[in-house]
Amino acid sequence: MKNIEIIAFDADDTLWVNEPYFRETEQKFCVLLQDYLTHHSISQELFKTEIDNLPLYGYGVKGFMLSMIETISKVTDNQASLDIVSKTLELGKELLEKPIELLDGVEDTLAHLKGKYRLVLATKGDLLDQERKLVKSGLENYFHHIEVMSNKEKLDYKKMLNHLDCQAENFLMVGNSLKSDVLPVLDLGGHAIHVPYHTTWAHEVVDKEVKRPNFAKVDSIRDVLGYLA
Amino acid sequence: MKNIEIIAFDADDTLWVNEPYFRETEQKFCVLLQDYLTHHSISQELFKTEIDNLPLYGYGVKGFMLSMIETISKVTDNQASLDIVSKTLELGKELLEKPIELLDGVEDTLAHLKGKYRLVLATKGDLLDQERKLVKSGLENYFHHIEVMSNKEKLDYKKMLNHLDCQAENFLMVGNSLKSDVLPVLDLGGHAIHVPYHTTWAHEVVDKEVKRPNFAKVDSIRDVLGYLA
Repeated sequence: MKNIEIIAFDADDTLWVNEPYFRETEQKFCVLLQDYLTHHSISQELFKTEIDNLPLYGYGVKGFMLSMIETISKVTDNQASLDIVSKTLELGKELLEKPIELLDGVEDTLAHLKGKYRLVLATKGDLLDQERKLVKSGLENYFHHIEVMSNKEKLDYKKMLNHLDCQAENFLMVGNSLKSDVLPVLDLGGHAIHVPYHTTWAHEVVDKEVKRPNFAKVDSIRDVLGYLA
Repeated sequence: MKNIEIIAFDADDTLWVNEPYFRETEQKFCVLLQDYLTHHSISQELFKTEIDNLPLYGYGVKGFMLSMIETISKVTDNQASLDIVSKTLELGKELLEKPIELLDGVEDTLAHLKGKYRLVLATKGDLLDQERKLVKSGLENYFHHIEVMSNKEKLDYKKMLNHLDCQAENFLMVGNSLKSDVLPVLDLGGHAIHVPYHTTWAHEVVDKEVKRPNFAKVDSIRDVLGYLA
């Protein structure tokens, strides 16, 4: 990969642990409602509610909390105790306050790249939450700035590239989601490196092999360095 | 005001109606709970909950929804019916889907300024919600881009100015909040014009006269043009 000027990194499950925390919260949420429905059915109803609400709420923990609360009303036909709602609010607040656990090799890799490229953090989610996570991660100084995006489709990256004053061929995106970090960037003529993570939200799963120029799939974020040599 | 290069406009209650919609939602919320407490006491409890949650949730409708739901649990000691929670979720969704009502003189003013200055929209709130409101407003083409800020304190403006590559003395902020749009910008050495709006959220109220260089208070957004002559 040549002539790269800006490297953007996805944050959740690329730099630090995220999806396992959501799944842990969802498990605890299912326990609260297990008198009403099986865990599997509650998870299905929650996922459906999240997807229905996505155009209105966008990504992030606050929308997830609101969708959990809506799910309580639905699966209990408004018969459950408000106590379950209070406990769900607590689960959401705990999720917002989780410590940041960096993934292996992240800091080394950023340290190698800093100064040679302009590094940007490009993430979906709630603005304040993502800013707070960046500060808590201790990685803030590696990045020129953070771009919290309401979505990661082709048009969103196009706007970001305009805003960064960067041509697609000089742009590399690194992330764990084929759908959000890889395919739209390749479609614009940019470069992308996929660093898969063991847990992926169903909404982000893409079930195909990508064979495209400007693309690489690596086992570890450390391997990004090899593609920039 | 001379040598202005970038003019940033606050959005809510500067370009379009916002706070009256929040107050209307709050009134409807108080009606849902009026068997438990007076409207005044419910509003007080809601405000306290919002302020307590602000560091965790940040600004915007989703946090407001979560704080309303938490208020239901508090004022009813978890004894209310879940039905009230469902209705509160509906109120929040209605608030997110309100049409955009431009304030008088906004479009004329932006049309006069476009091309002469770089115009930026600088607002707090939920990212997706503010982006959607900008699109719905029909004002998108007047702005170079939108900056959704997690907060509007001095440090936040400093970061924004760095990011915009703009010196404070070449920056003008126009908005309805002395606390968020005026004082931090003046403190940085920038220019600010206050366009008061008839309804202000208690959290944003500043009870003092501002007498500072680089500052003006105007009755209508149209009057901004006179200060740039």
